[in-house]
Order: sequence, then structure tokens, then C-alpha cells
Amino acid sequence: MSEGFDAVDVIRTKRDGGRLSDGQIDWVLDAYTRGVVAEEQMSALAMAILLNGMDRAEIARWTAAMIASGERMDFSGLSRPTADKHSTGGVGDKITLPLAPLVAVFDVAVPQLSGRGLGHTGGTLDKLEAIPGWRAELTNDEMMAQLESVGAVICQAGAGLAPADRKLYALRDVTGTVEAIPLIASSIMSKKIAEGTGSLVLDVKVGTGAFMKDADRARELARTMVELGTDAGVRTVALLTDMSTPLGLTAGNALEVRESLEVLAGGGPADVVELTVALAREMLDAAGRPDADPAAALADGRAMDVWRAMIAAQGGDVDAPLPVARETEQVLAPADGVLTSLDAYAVGVAAWRLGAGRARKEDPVQAGAGVELHAKPGDTVRAGQPLLTLHTDTPERFERAREVLAGAATIEADGAAAPRTLLLDRIEA
Amino acid sequence: MSEGFDAVDVIRTKRDGGRLSDGQIDWVLDAYTRGVVAEEQMSALAMAILLNGMDRAEIARWTAAMIASGERMDFSGLSRPTADKHSTGGVGDKITLPLAPLVAVFDVAVPQLSGRGLGHTGGTLDKLEAIPGWRAELTNDEMMAQLESVGAVICQAGAGLAPADRKLYALRDVTGTVEAIPLIASSIMSKKIAEGTGSLVLDVKVGTGAFMKDADRARELARTMVELGTDAGVRTVALLTDMSTPLGLTAGNALEVRESLEVLAGGGPADVVELTVALAREMLDAAGRPDADPAAALADGRAMDVWRAMIAAQGGDVDAPLPVARETEQVLAPADGVLTSLDAYAVGVAAWRLGAGRARKEDPVQAGAGVELHAKPGDTVRAGQPLLTLHTDTPERFERAREVLAGAATIEADGAAAPRTLLLDRIEA
Repeated sequence: MSEGFDAVDVIRTKRDGGRLSDGQIDWVLDAYTRGVVAEEQMSALAMAILLNGMDRAEIARWTAAMIASGERMDFSGLSRPTADKHSTGGVGDKITLPLAPLVAVFDVAVPQLSGRGLGHTGGTLDKLEAIPGWRAELTNDEMMAQLESVGAVICQAGAGLAPADRKLYALRDVTGTVEAIPLIASSIMSKKIAEGTGSLVLDVKVGTGAFMKDADRARELARTMVELGTDAGVRTVALLTDMSTPLGLTAGNALEVRESLEVLAGGGPADVVELTVALAREMLDAAGRPDADPAAALADGRAMDVWRAMIAAQGGDVDAPLPVARETEQVLAPADGVLTSLDAYAVGVAAWRLGAGRARKEDPVQAGAGVELHAKPGDTVRAGQPLLTLHTDTPERFERAREVLAGAATIEADGAAAPRTLLLDRIEA
Repeated sequence: MSEGFDAVDVIRTKRDGGRLSDGQIDWVLDAYTRGVVAEEQMSALAMAILLNGMDRAEIARWTAAMIASGERMDFSGLSRPTADKHSTGGVGDKITLPLAPLVAVFDVAVPQLSGRGLGHTGGTLDKLEAIPGWRAELTNDEMMAQLESVGAVICQAGAGLAPADRKLYALRDVTGTVEAIPLIASSIMSKKIAEGTGSLVLDVKVGTGAFMKDADRARELARTMVELGTDAGVRTVALLTDMSTPLGLTAGNALEVRESLEVLAGGGPADVVELTVALAREMLDAAGRPDADPAAALADGRAMDVWRAMIAAQGGDVDAPLPVARETEQVLAPADGVLTSLDAYAVGVAAWRLGAGRARKEDPVQAGAGVELHAKPGDTVRAGQPLLTLHTDTPERFERAREVLAGAATIEADGAAAPRTLLLDRIEA
């Protein structure tokens, strides 16, 4: 009121289908961050935004106001261009691990500020913490020094970036307002723009294991984020990629690190390699390295060299054995035939229930827990052969993992899996 | 969760345009009353209800769940039938004051559980508290005894009736979710049904001075409330009445008591008398007294006798002089002509700013403050004659009252006011 704005007026504007003015947006996010606008007021506004939408200019201003709530980083002093990648999250999505060192091979700085997992999709930091000694927290100076010396860093986002987003995200989580595209897009992009990357490639997942089950909504989210990045001066491109079945053959922290090492050693599952190379090409193009050959850098060990330097710079013991779960159980194929589908969501929830993920953000995770796949859709299987291996330190968890996996695999005697298209679409400004 | 329901699931159901199940409604209102569902969750749900609506069965269940959150009263032990009236609130709406004793003349018990004013419409209890000694708080036993002895009681609603509504109303007020018809209807009707009246007449106001500016929305609210009452076994009828200009010639606490006394003495402004008699007829019909003649009971003093007994029973000194504001100022007609409109909202806000109403519910009110009208739409006026008298104890308030009154009156040299239709519609089950 004293500042000329009133929370109820702002809520009513959006409730009645109007546009929020720049002044309203700046005020409401600043006042919310300071606790002047109450949680129950912001949740009513978030629901009105979810149901009535925001236009491109409103979303851009909302994102700018979230950025203004905190600090901005500046990579302009680096000797190299910067490129970053963000994935909306999927089951078995370990791509950041081989991708960051791979892109850094070509003299591009890759600052991957990452998070921990909540729910059925794992977090990049949880995965890397399976490596003995590795630490996620770096100061801004340490991060800058590592980008200059190694070229790639994967670390925890500082609390100073877009604090309004942190507060708003926690609120949306308990008020049924997570699914608003303007709020998802501004949440992701406010952190990426505040981080100061020069270019950004978005991996927007579509399918049962993804946040967006539907290609049209995923495309709308991708377009909104590309517009936001472009308007803020970040070269931004988005790939829509399939998440109907897990990426690769593992879901779980140490299991996914192991698979990433296979990719960095020139091997690994075809889908993980395909997506890693496709995202690397996009990042390299955006960073002004159109002639780089990322596939070659995986094959000849250059990406592995950067990986080892990157892990070691953050205290990780690159030669130490990775943790292994204390107990395993197998899920067997019930019949002969072709595996025509293996549901990503069920595998993600099973890995989570086995201990790879957390229900509340203060919960610990098990480094060794997760699900290992022995077949992918399209493969022919025989009755009694292992389809999956479940890993956990706490065998009482097997039962609840098996529950969610019941019906997750479809085997058809004369079936044929529809050929999988991993890269569904590409969206640029 | 432990009870099989989850607040986010309930919110998502309504957000996505679905119906809330009986179980969801019962759970969410009970859990909200107990503090298990948080304020920010209920505000997101309220916004989803505002934007996506509820069907008749959902609103009925929501109302029943609010009633179940508290105590119910029971008037079945009285020797007389009961009838109650509720107005959605307007400027100068003092009708409850003459109406309750008037209906009680005919051996109908009138239990008027009332509230205080917030914003530009006054509260019945604030008006009666202008009478020296009168007290609003009665125990249930005192109320019952007064209904048996006097027949009419106007008192404060106990905190035990529909506590979920009290909590929800305070939340809606700060979250831009007041205007949802299902929530307005269930808020009003939960208290009236819990109160246990046998019949109920609703006065739904339409116009600038009313909560509902638009006749279609007012009609929808009226119909929703009539359905709710009927479904709960209360004989319910609604009148839609005009609130484009104030009722009567006064807005303010003691000023309105004085005007009510004129009506009870057989005089008073024509519109106040017309509405009082029309509502009395409806209440008497619903209570099984179709042959009663309320106009006669105003003319011959029987209604005044019940008024005196009713006020005295609650400690009021019926012969004491009413409070008078310390200062007055006049607003003069700027030109000769016909007063073609006098905006109810502006007069209501002016009375409020002069001290008759409160901005926050803990604020005191001035008994003598308010606005007195010297002309009504349709009257011919002369330049320089008084149009309004402003009353307040705190003369620094005159300026802000005059501000809102600028442009409130339209005077046209050759004008003619459209004839006013006070009773716009009647809605029954």
C-alpha cells in the first residue's frame, strides 16, 4: 500500500484475465521476497497465473524481477565463451556428467550449476556425490578458477541466485501450482540468466518419465524458455527429447556415474551417446565452435581427460571404486517375446523407492541404490531371463519397488516396438 | 495423507476443472479448520474454485462441511415458527432494525444473528451500538429466552457457528477470492442453516453500492443460495433489490437508528418502508402467516412496541438521546435541475471515511458519523441548496469524504431520473 501497490489488486488483475504491469510484477516479487506479500497471497496469484496465463512480455518481466531478487554472476572475464545445458529432468538422465567435460574439450567454459533430486528423477549432484571425496559446494572464486583451468565445473547453485525463485518454488510444490508454464519457464530461466552463461541448450523431456507428459505442452514450455533466453541476450536453443523409457541402462547415483564413465571411455548405451553428442553439438555451435567433433573427443579419450581433471579439482578420487549396494534382486521376464515398452516413470519411482532418491529435501540418498536394465524396448527376451536388477542397501525396500514395476514392462509374443525417436524436435528463436 | 487425502490432490482436482468428491470436501474443510491444510493451500483452492466453479451438489456439500465444523442451534423448542432475513449489504441498509420487531408482532420468532461492518457498508451491530447501553453479545440461553418473551433478537453470531467459515472468510479477504459465488453462497448459508431458522428471506442487492454490481451475477448468487437453503430444509426465498442509490436518507450508525425509529413510528422514507414491508410479507408468508398486515403494524405502533421491548431486553435505553457527531458540513447543489443520480458507493465510502465504518476489524467506529441526504434521484434541486450533510467527530475527515463525493451526484437542467424499481426480481425454489 505504502509503495502504491496492493497484493489483492495484483491478484485480482490476473484473476480477471488482465495483464500484470511491469510495476505490479516488480513490486509483488520484491515484496514477496521480503515477506510483505504473504505466502497465501502468492499462492492465489500463482493459481490465477496457472489458469489465466501470462503473455511473453509479462513472463519476461517476471523472470527479470526474479533475477533482480538476487545476485548475478559474470563470466565475461573468462578467456573462453560459456555454454550451459539444462534438462527438465528424466529417468536415467545422466547426460550432464559426460557432456560438461566433452564440451570443455573444445575451449568452451561449461558452468553447470545443478541441484539435488526430489521425487522420481535423480539429481546431478546426488550422482556425483557417489564419487568418494567429491564436493558440490564451491565459492564463486573457486568456480571461476576451475572454469579457467579445467573448463568445466558441475557444482551446487549458490543461494544468492534468484532467491525469489527458491521461495516461490517451495510454495508451488505444496499448492498445486507447479504445472504453470510461465512459472516453470521463469523459474528455470531466471537462474540460468542470473548465472550469466553466453549460450544455453535446453533438453525438454517428453513422456511418462518426464515432468511434461504431452508433446504440445513440452513444446510450449520450450518455446517460452527460448524466447526468455533470447530476449535476455542468451543464445538459447531447445531440443525436445523422448522420456517414455529410461535413458541408458541405469537409474541410480553410482550406477549412472559408472555408465557415464563408459560413455567417456568411448562406449556406453547408444541413446546416451546420441543425446550427449547432439547436445554437445548444439552447445558448441552456440558457443562459436561449429567445426568441433564431439564424437571424436569421446572416442579418443580427450573428454575423459577433462572429466578426471574436473572431478579431481573438486576433491573427487577418480580412481577409487564406486559404491555398490549391499543387496540386489532380479526382476525376470515372465514370457518369451519382444519387449515393446518399459515405462520410464515406473523405473524412476522404483529407483527412488530403493533409496536413490528422497521424499523430503533433507533426506539422505543411498549412493549404490537404483535400477539396472538388461533389455530396452525392441529387444527380444526369453521367459526367465533377467529384465532388471534392483540395487539397495535396505532390502525391505524391494517389495515397494516391485509393486510399482508390476506392469511396467510389456512383452508381446509377436510384437515389435515402435522405433524410438530420441530427438523429437528442435526449437530456436 | 494419513487420512487418505492430500491437499495438493484436492487442489489439482479443482484446478483441472474436475468435481470435488464428498470425501475431498469433508476432509479439506475439516483439515483446514484444524490447521492441517495450510492457509496457502486453501487460498490456491479458493482461487481454483473462483475460476473453475462448483456444481450444485459440490456447493451443498461444501456448505454442509462448513456447518459440521461447528455447533448447530435448535429453535424447535420455541412455541413460534422462526424466520430470518439476510442482506448481502448496501449503503443505508438499516432494514433489519424495523423489520425484526415488525415480523415479531405476528408471533413469529426472528433470530437475527448479525455482524459488524467492514468497508463501505455498515454493520447492523454497529448501528444498534449507537443506542446507549445496548449490548450485542448474548448467550444462547439469553437469546432463546428473548425469542420466547419478546419475539425478536438482533445479536452477534456466536463464534461456535461454522468456524471454518470465519477462518476462510479472513483468508479470502486478503487473497482476492471473495468474489467466488460458490464461496459467498456457502459462507452466508452455512451460518443461516447452522443457526436453525425455519425460513429465510434473502435480500440480494444489485448496483454500485452493492457487492454485486451486475444483475446476472446477483441473480446467480440468489439462485445458488435459494437452492442451498431449500436442499437443507429451510424455506428460502430471495428478493433482488436496487442498490444504485442509498436506501433512505441516511448512512451512518446513529443516523440510521433515527431513520429506523421514523419508520417504526409510521413515517420514514418511502423506499425504506417499501422494502421493510416487502421483506416482512415474505418472512410472514414463509412462516405461515399469509394474512398478516405488516403495513398496519407500522402505522399503529405495534412494531414500535416490540422494538422497545427488544432494545430494552438487551440493556438499551430506548428513551436516551442518540449520539450526535461533533461537526457537520454541507455539500451544496452546484446547479439548478433534476438530481438524476446519486451514487450509492460514493456515499457509502464517504460515510466510512467520516468514521461510520472501519478499515480493519479491530478499529472503533464513530456512533454519530455519516452522511445525511437532502434529496433523492428524481427530486428537483436549486443551485446552493444543501444536497448532503456530512457528520463526523473528527473534522479532518471532511476532505477525504468530499473527494469521493466529487461527481457522485448528477444534476441535469432538463433531466428526469429514470423511475426507480426497488424490487427487481423474486427468486424461489
